[in-house]
Amino acid sequence: MLRFTKKGSKKAGLPPGALVHMGKKKIEKTRITLMDYDEMHFQDREIKTLYESLSFKNQPTVTWVNVEGIHQARILEKLGECFGLHPLVVEDILNMEERPKMEDFGDYILVVLRIPYHYNSKSNEIETEQISLVLGPNFVVSFQERAGDVFHPIREQIRNGKGRIRKSGADYLAYALVDSIVDTYLKVLEQLGESMESMEEELVTNPVPQTLQIIHDLKREMILLSKSVRPFREIVGKLERGESPLIKEPTTIFLSDVHDHTIEVIDTVETFRDMLSSMLDIYLSSVSNKTNEVMKVLTIIATIFIPLALIPGIYGMNFKHMPELGWRWGYPMVWIVMIGIGVAMLMYFRKKKWL
Amino acid sequence: MLRFTKKGSKKAGLPPGALVHMGKKKIEKTRITLMDYDEMHFQDREIKTLYESLSFKNQPTVTWVNVEGIHQARILEKLGECFGLHPLVVEDILNMEERPKMEDFGDYILVVLRIPYHYNSKSNEIETEQISLVLGPNFVVSFQERAGDVFHPIREQIRNGKGRIRKSGADYLAYALVDSIVDTYLKVLEQLGESMESMEEELVTNPVPQTLQIIHDLKREMILLSKSVRPFREIVGKLERGESPLIKEPTTIFLSDVHDHTIEVIDTVETFRDMLSSMLDIYLSSVSNKTNEVMKVLTIIATIFIPLALIPGIYGMNFKHMPELGWRWGYPMVWIVMIGIGVAMLMYFRKKKWL
Amino acid sequence: MLRFTKKGSKKAGLPPGALVHMGKKKIEKTRITLMDYDEMHFQDREIKTLYESLSFKNQPTVTWVNVEGIHQARILEKLGECFGLHPLVVEDILNMEERPKMEDFGDYILVVLRIPYHYNSKSNEIETEQISLVLGPNFVVSFQERAGDVFHPIREQIRNGKGRIRKSGADYLAYALVDSIVDTYLKVLEQLGESMESMEEELVTNPVPQTLQIIHDLKREMILLSKSVRPFREIVGKLERGESPLIKEPTTIFLSDVHDHTIEVIDTVETFRDMLSSMLDIYLSSVSNKTNEVMKVLTIIATIFIPLALIPGIYGMNFKHMPELGWRWGYPMVWIVMIGIGVAMLMYFRKKKWL
Amino acid sequence: MLRFTKKGSKKAGLPPGALVHMGKKKIEKTRITLMDYDEMHFQDREIKTLYESLSFKNQPTVTWVNVEGIHQARILEKLGECFGLHPLVVEDILNMEERPKMEDFGDYILVVLRIPYHYNSKSNEIETEQISLVLGPNFVVSFQERAGDVFHPIREQIRNGKGRIRKSGADYLAYALVDSIVDTYLKVLEQLGESMESMEEELVTNPVPQTLQIIHDLKREMILLSKSVRPFREIVGKLERGESPLIKEPTTIFLSDVHDHTIEVIDTVETFRDMLSSMLDIYLSSVSNKTNEVMKVLTIIATIFIPLALIPGIYGMNFKHMPELGWRWGYPMVWIVMIGIGVAMLMYFRKKKWL
Amino acid sequence: MLRFTKKGSKKAGLPPGALVHMGKKKIEKTRITLMDYDEMHFQDREIKTLYESLSFKNQPTVTWVNVEGIHQARILEKLGECFGLHPLVVEDILNMEERPKMEDFGDYILVVLRIPYHYNSKSNEIETEQISLVLGPNFVVSFQERAGDVFHPIREQIRNGKGRIRKSGADYLAYALVDSIVDTYLKVLEQLGESMESMEEELVTNPVPQTLQIIHDLKREMILLSKSVRPFREIVGKLERGESPLIKEPTTIFLSDVHDHTIEVIDTVETFRDMLSSMLDIYLSSVSNKTNEVMKVLTIIATIFIPLALIPGIYGMNFKHMPELGWRWGYPMVWIVMIGIGVAMLMYFRKKKWL
Repeated sequence: MLRFTKKGSKKAGLPPGALVHMGKKKIEKTRITLMDYDEMHFQDREIKTLYESLSFKNQPTVTWVNVEGIHQARILEKLGECFGLHPLVVEDILNMEERPKMEDFGDYILVVLRIPYHYNSKSNEIETEQISLVLGPNFVVSFQERAGDVFHPIREQIRNGKGRIRKSGADYLAYALVDSIVDTYLKVLEQLGESMESMEEELVTNPVPQTLQIIHDLKREMILLSKSVRPFREIVGKLERGESPLIKEPTTIFLSDVHDHTIEVIDTVETFRDMLSSMLDIYLSSVSNKTNEVMKVLTIIATIFIPLALIPGIYGMNFKHMPELGWRWGYPMVWIVMIGIGVAMLMYFRKKKWL
Repeated sequence: MLRFTKKGSKKAGLPPGALVHMGKKKIEKTRITLMDYDEMHFQDREIKTLYESLSFKNQPTVTWVNVEGIHQARILEKLGECFGLHPLVVEDILNMEERPKMEDFGDYILVVLRIPYHYNSKSNEIETEQISLVLGPNFVVSFQERAGDVFHPIREQIRNGKGRIRKSGADYLAYALVDSIVDTYLKVLEQLGESMESMEEELVTNPVPQTLQIIHDLKREMILLSKSVRPFREIVGKLERGESPLIKEPTTIFLSDVHDHTIEVIDTVETFRDMLSSMLDIYLSSVSNKTNEVMKVLTIIATIFIPLALIPGIYGMNFKHMPELGWRWGYPMVWIVMIGIGVAMLMYFRKKKWL
Repeated sequence: MLRFTKKGSKKAGLPPGALVHMGKKKIEKTRITLMDYDEMHFQDREIKTLYESLSFKNQPTVTWVNVEGIHQARILEKLGECFGLHPLVVEDILNMEERPKMEDFGDYILVVLRIPYHYNSKSNEIETEQISLVLGPNFVVSFQERAGDVFHPIREQIRNGKGRIRKSGADYLAYALVDSIVDTYLKVLEQLGESMESMEEELVTNPVPQTLQIIHDLKREMILLSKSVRPFREIVGKLERGESPLIKEPTTIFLSDVHDHTIEVIDTVETFRDMLSSMLDIYLSSVSNKTNEVMKVLTIIATIFIPLALIPGIYGMNFKHMPELGWRWGYPMVWIVMIGIGVAMLMYFRKKKWL
Repeated sequence: MLRFTKKGSKKAGLPPGALVHMGKKKIEKTRITLMDYDEMHFQDREIKTLYESLSFKNQPTVTWVNVEGIHQARILEKLGECFGLHPLVVEDILNMEERPKMEDFGDYILVVLRIPYHYNSKSNEIETEQISLVLGPNFVVSFQERAGDVFHPIREQIRNGKGRIRKSGADYLAYALVDSIVDTYLKVLEQLGESMESMEEELVTNPVPQTLQIIHDLKREMILLSKSVRPFREIVGKLERGESPLIKEPTTIFLSDVHDHTIEVIDTVETFRDMLSSMLDIYLSSVSNKTNEVMKVLTIIATIFIPLALIPGIYGMNFKHMPELGWRWGYPMVWIVMIGIGVAMLMYFRKKKWL
Repeated sequence: MLRFTKKGSKKAGLPPGALVHMGKKKIEKTRITLMDYDEMHFQDREIKTLYESLSFKNQPTVTWVNVEGIHQARILEKLGECFGLHPLVVEDILNMEERPKMEDFGDYILVVLRIPYHYNSKSNEIETEQISLVLGPNFVVSFQERAGDVFHPIREQIRNGKGRIRKSGADYLAYALVDSIVDTYLKVLEQLGESMESMEEELVTNPVPQTLQIIHDLKREMILLSKSVRPFREIVGKLERGESPLIKEPTTIFLSDVHDHTIEVIDTVETFRDMLSSMLDIYLSSVSNKTNEVMKVLTIIATIFIPLALIPGIYGMNFKHMPELGWRWGYPMVWIVMIGIGVAMLMYFRKKKWL
């Protein structure tokens, strides 16, 4: 699986605006749900084609159309027509490898974000999917790359009528969706933080190659997360500045809160990168330390025993004329000399603080 | 204990503005104290509920309500109502993991900061807590995550009537609180600086794994401090620029002084990070140096004695026809040759500057 | 072959504006093709000199003159005259080592870009060539350093009349050319990403010198790519901002899309650089790990057997008076002692977690 | 001695504006000198209290009051009153650990700088002291932390009446003082540069631990210098921009020159930091090189002699049935085989380029 | 020779504006040449004093005075007077260690640049000299630190009357001079690029200490070049923006071209720095690789032969009761066992991929 690059290049050679879905997997079935609500009324249904949503679009109630699994270009082919979108907008929504961005087209705002949907704690890989939002005067259309409702809590809020969501317009709904996406990052970062903390304890005392593997995996993920999260700041900032009449003033203060969270996410990613770099340096130093320790053991043993071995070697020679061999106390003397040399060596090493 | 990430993610799924306290520990009892003063009068009392402070709020005297241990949401639930705060402000105050920030709501200013309250000199961990301030026309409400009065000196100043605090308004009080928070960082950095200086001396001469552990701990703390302190600059800068009518002109010059101190704190954190990075590099080089020294000892010993050992080995062979064995001076010759080789080797190593 | 610097210095000493082709190789023949089209009509022909294009230039149809292999200065010498270009523009087009840039001369816009035309997967070298575009009111002249039509897909689009290209003006054609150049980078980066991913798997488990070579090659290419791609952002940004009347409003939205892709390219290059730096650190740590492992094996063997060897050495001595030699169980005792020492050592190493 | 942090934290708990001297040492006696001059007249005297300078202050001549050793707060307590200074200004002057800064109070300008007064070439430590200047309409008051007249050359210029100083106003005097402070940094950097150049020569050829110590010391000083010098740029820039009527137009051009020198100082500090980082990397690589060399020697010796030693070992065995032992040419054969193996090994190592 | 710092500090203590030449060497004789030309006329002569140029200065023709070797302050002492220059300008011209800068004095523009005049390919040192230009309404005065006409090609252009130089004013001449200086950097960088490319090939396969030396030398030069080249961007940018009436509009487009080349130079220096950093990392990794290889050889040899040596040691013991010694096949058995152990070891190492 290729995670480092995006497949935008497949488009090379096609006329701009050609409708081709460019995501990785095309397994799930497309599922379209529609919610329509105001403070009093509320309905929730599954629809087959986007055409069914047209009747809701022009009513004063807030209409939220959510499309999960957008690979079936056939279903979506009339998307631009239904909602009056520019061909490039449709292309951006279908191209699953778009850089996060926000564009204001006057009548509607396109927001393209990425959300982490799965964290593989074994390979420490974080899979992300693209989420696109189109915010119109009283509707929001959201597109998810894969099935699985990441917006379930918001759906529940609408159903229960809790909080201010039922009392607010489409811009508040868009805020709630973006907010839930940003919160997902905080949750993922928390998990990664736990991995880092548990790893940190063994870093100096017991550096094992697995630690290195984890550090590498996490660093790679931070680099990738950093790439997909950094554009968020500008996106939410642009929304918050409220240059579009689609974003009403009371929502601005909530967007300012998301803005803070976005900066928090970016800060945390940068902090984690710094920490992992630091950990890697520490790891390298720890391994050097350990090599040094191993070297010392080797050197102590070799320095004591290699010279010692010379003595028995000498008295193992077969020269005819070796007076010591005939001495009465020659053999005990050899023992005494050898033990003496050994003890002297040990004392020397202790003095050098190698022991 | 998780220190790397904040628990903002717990909120995921709740409607924005839901009142849940998100700090780490919920042990201490909430304690609310109230000070009310002007140049002439002064009173100081403990109150049970925020309602008791309402009567003071509307008098021309400066009212300071300080809440320690804010986990009992029940006591604080009417907070927004009492002081007319936006629901998100109340949420920010209760959420103990907020990014430091300052927001001007016209009638009042919210300042969220972090303060280090404990430095564990064993694990070199710095625990921080969140402090929120709400500055109104003639009142300040301050919220501390934990019990323990970090503002004791300011309280004493008010009691003694020393300095200009009793003669000044609520904005000066807010300045004094922020100033004391920034000074706490300088104090903590001083302690860390001492740890670094004492460690520095052993860095080149005697690099031990404990040094590595300390460097790692301090680097981690610097990264975390950096994250919580960096937003201060913008916060104090915004206050100083005096865009809000709540901040009167004479206080601006004092805020400009805090601004300088804030930059000093940030500069020092950056300087310490640079120094720790440098120290780590030096540590690694020192360990390499030591490994090199150990290697030299091993090599000298092995290079002298391994070849030497060959000679007695040869004359320990049991060949029938080995003329040297019968020579009168064969044995002394072996000694002479061996000593000669050893001395030559030593001279070679001295020439190579290994000795 | 010199790839690190550009040969702009050859010009030193010549009067500015002197017509000298400064590219690397002068092998290919210059080939000039001309396309002239509007929504209804279309013609496509090869021409000999730029003069032949003059008649088309002044018609309302879009005229695209493409020059491949621009080394024959003779053919191009009237270039400035034909299209009314400033001498420095002609010099920039002919100088194959120009920094990517965009300059608005009022009547026409000069865009100089670089395109990767070949990726040598053995040496991991990416060869780039310079592409210059001159956009006038209803014509585009493009200059390629080498033969080989990188714009083939666009040519096909014009021939087929698909997409909006036939319905749009010269500015859209220029957009399409720039877009196809940016897409080429995405394609190359994808290939490099695959190289990196395949390499990544062996990084911790099996670091071989070839891995190091590849990391080095890729890092070098990233540095070089970074240098040639970074100016793109400003170039496309300037075009997008639409300050020139030559760029009509509907094209702006397409340029904004290219702008996003350009940022994507730059981001990816930076991300890859970060990853390669991280990989290099991991590589170094892995090699240290392996050295540590090798050292352990050596130390274990040496620590067990060097001391053991002392025992037979002692009983190989030829002293007359060595009581042990005459003992009945002396020889088996030696075996027992040696095996005992060996087992004790192994247990010690297991305890130290070296085994 | 603590050099890493400043003792600003001692103030924590005191009301802002409290007069406490916060420098490190309080040894020297305070000494106040006064110079009063214009183009024609000139006087120079030592005074006891700042009150004595008041009469000069209101004359049209330029008055320069220089205070050396500012620890005696008693003498300075009326400072604010004498010159009409804001309490915070007096606090900044007395607090010896202030961050360099410039503040315009309308009637006067406060400039706080640091100057290196001593370079310990043994520990490579650079001691700095704080210098504060107050520039009024026709007076300059300067405060030095320690005794010792760093402004001696300027005093001489005034005495001699050379240069334009006597013909110019108080703003030119302030310029001259700032200029001499900036020049001091250039002098110190030159000394450090010499240390670096002498060290550089031994870096690759003979890396010794002392080199490492010096690199570390210099890096630390660069980090500290960088911290105290960086604010200069903004300070001098603000002065140069001439927003204050206290700075007359002809002085601006001189300040622009100081501004260039300030950037030169900052550039040099950054350049030195880069160089020292580079040197440290080279040092580490050199040590690795040397370890590699040592390893090769060890490996060559061990690889040649350890296998060789096996041969005499074998023929030293006491088996009854070892036919070789009885052979006539057995012993010479052993020599030939051993020499042959040794030579083959050497040739192998030469081929591997280890010799 | 001191290359790291500039000797500006020698000035410390002198009144600003004192005329002292501060370059390194004072060997060459000062030589002043004068060219005076317009489209029709042209003269070229050597003059003794600057006074001789005064008569040309006020004519409408372009006058170019070039001073080589500016150490003879005596000759230049009337410089300020002749051309009406501010004392600080004269000081900047004479001070050979000035930071590159551009200053607009209304009547004339001062440009101070540095040019590399010699590349020592042995020590990889690039010597630079200072070049100052004063551009007036119809004259240019250029000052070179050393003799040797770096502007020879431009002189030739004027003589030949080729290009537009004779048809243009003094501003074009200034452009041509600056352009030739920037081109010199490109030429030097090209040489350095060649050194790097030739070095790169041996980096992974055969890292030798000399490589390290070269990397270090080049890194140092890049740091120094970076310092002297970085200000160029701003200088040329300021000239190009054409705020001075001395720079006429047609010259602006040429300056914009030099601006591009300047950015190219700065980019290349940065690119080279990145590459050298990368190379150093690779070098370090390569050396680690090699150490690892050496260690493996040592470990293989030691692990095979040290245990093997134990066997002959055992059968060399002199115990009376060693049944194996009397066995008929004892000696061949020893050989078989030893060879068996050796082969088993080799297979083990092959399995571990050490062979």
